[in-house]
Amino acid sequence: LTDKTPAALVEHALAGNRRAIGRILTWVENARPEGIEALRLLYPRTGHARIVGVTGAPGSGKSTLVNRLALEERKRGRSVGIVAVDPSSPISGGAVLGDRVRMEELFGDPEIFVRSMASRDALGGLAETTGQVISVLDAVGKDIVIVETVGVGQAEVDIVQEAHTTIVVVIPGMGDDIQAMKAGLMEIADLFVVNKADRPGADNVAAQIRQMLSLAPASAARRPLILKTEATTGKGVAELVTAIDEHWTYLNEERRLDRYQNERARRQVLALARDTLSARLERLSTDDPSVARLIEDVADKRVDPYSAAEQVLEKYFPVRSPDRNP
Amino acid sequence: LTDKTPAALVEHALAGNRRAIGRILTWVENARPEGIEALRLLYPRTGHARIVGVTGAPGSGKSTLVNRLALEERKRGRSVGIVAVDPSSPISGGAVLGDRVRMEELFGDPEIFVRSMASRDALGGLAETTGQVISVLDAVGKDIVIVETVGVGQAEVDIVQEAHTTIVVVIPGMGDDIQAMKAGLMEIADLFVVNKADRPGADNVAAQIRQMLSLAPASAARRPLILKTEATTGKGVAELVTAIDEHWTYLNEERRLDRYQNERARRQVLALARDTLSARLERLSTDDPSVARLIEDVADKRVDPYSAAEQVLEKYFPVRSPDRNP
Repeated sequence: LTDKTPAALVEHALAGNRRAIGRILTWVENARPEGIEALRLLYPRTGHARIVGVTGAPGSGKSTLVNRLALEERKRGRSVGIVAVDPSSPISGGAVLGDRVRMEELFGDPEIFVRSMASRDALGGLAETTGQVISVLDAVGKDIVIVETVGVGQAEVDIVQEAHTTIVVVIPGMGDDIQAMKAGLMEIADLFVVNKADRPGADNVAAQIRQMLSLAPASAARRPLILKTEATTGKGVAELVTAIDEHWTYLNEERRLDRYQNERARRQVLALARDTLSARLERLSTDDPSVARLIEDVADKRVDPYSAAEQVLEKYFPVRSPDRNP
Repeated sequence: LTDKTPAALVEHALAGNRRAIGRILTWVENARPEGIEALRLLYPRTGHARIVGVTGAPGSGKSTLVNRLALEERKRGRSVGIVAVDPSSPISGGAVLGDRVRMEELFGDPEIFVRSMASRDALGGLAETTGQVISVLDAVGKDIVIVETVGVGQAEVDIVQEAHTTIVVVIPGMGDDIQAMKAGLMEIADLFVVNKADRPGADNVAAQIRQMLSLAPASAARRPLILKTEATTGKGVAELVTAIDEHWTYLNEERRLDRYQNERARRQVLALARDTLSARLERLSTDDPSVARLIEDVADKRVDPYSAAEQVLEKYFPVRSPDRNP
């Protein structure tokens, strides 16, 4: 890697060079212009990978399950990308799980690429960056990209919206808050996995989920399956991969995938435009002294924040009517 | 409540009418124009309340602890608002904890106002709406507003940034992922609480936190205290309230509170402006057929999303240089 321009690295990445892929991902994560340049070049190559999201509460054994999933996909001859998204520091942005030990089997295999990501950006940028990392792994030819998120907040929900198939992992005996979590995750789940299914209470959790699902409106999409796994031994993982495959078949029926691609494109374009506008706003708050003064007036309760926001918009972002002509 | 204009309801709310407060909060949560109108009127009355954020992983006993905190604050003669933020459905927006049973003692007391909130908005709007709910409770005269968030994701971090004092709740024996969670929450915590401290391992968790804190740079702000509580019995809660009071005293030294208010005002103004721009973008994607077509081109990989976003911005949001004259 002597020539480190985006164009050169993209070429190396497309040829399977792991260091080139890694460097492009670092650019993307750090929101560097080189990352955007690389993504522009890679974009026409995307659209091949199947994206599988895995989410659930802390302690549910997601990482082990993801490792097992990756191994099973490899057995079926597919190359695998893993993106582990960490709920790490809003300030230092350090990837606390970056050094988490992944199973050795994974690291020896050139057809598996693992990336740990930190959540650096408070402006909802995590989902977007994750989407870009997925796009890179998709473009360089991974058949399956597994996105693992730790946590059950809105950011995680946003992230798994990037996935074709979303797996929600629960375990027996998770306490009171499981009700709350399940409700939040109910509508994004394509598959439920009761992991650590050897523990007492596994059937009980499965029954709880089944009952909540039965309350969903009949108009709702395909009812999610509920599977049991023991990630530490690998039990149930082959069945899980088969269920993921079946969900993929379902998506390919009746143009569902087209709608998904269109919705994803819409989200990407709007998010990028929004980010640019957001960055412009941030700069105005320091670069224009009258905006800085306005903010002080808000802090001192002389002006309300709504009027202040309106003044900023009027000055810098005047409304233009949409062009309705086709 | 016969006159249901914002001005009339604001007057009733300021006089302590709970139904008026409730209706204003519903407007605010549903992003209704009446809510903005009410907030404009209430804004000059804000700035009195102390805002306490309570966050931590699911199952840590946050709700019970918040109830205990509220009772202890009442003992000290302060009126209390509680805002419970739920990680609920991105689709239905239902507040799954809305019907959670709060201790009866709380509900009988006219000086306590409890509000459960759902997370309706995927665009990072939850923190903003929470901030507005806090502002309403502040303006109507609550001395303390306690914000409880379920979860440990970025959205929760954004929410607790609204707080003067942030309490991170952990419990003994939370499993592997506690490391990850603590790192994420380490830098936002003003106080750590080891709840369920009667369980084995409480000292161990406290020691783990202490050790992680000892690794923080010396330049960092005030080192957080670590307290132990048993929320179910109330043990340790009086000490916790005293620690919150001490943190308030600390904030009032050396103009730290002014800086906090200014930063909060900046965040509010920028978030409001950002939301308006974001809504304009969303509308364009349906109202302007050429934008809709551009998105289809992105979905079909004929145009990359970066170029598409640029085209939308050029057409509707041309850059205006900041006015640098004071």
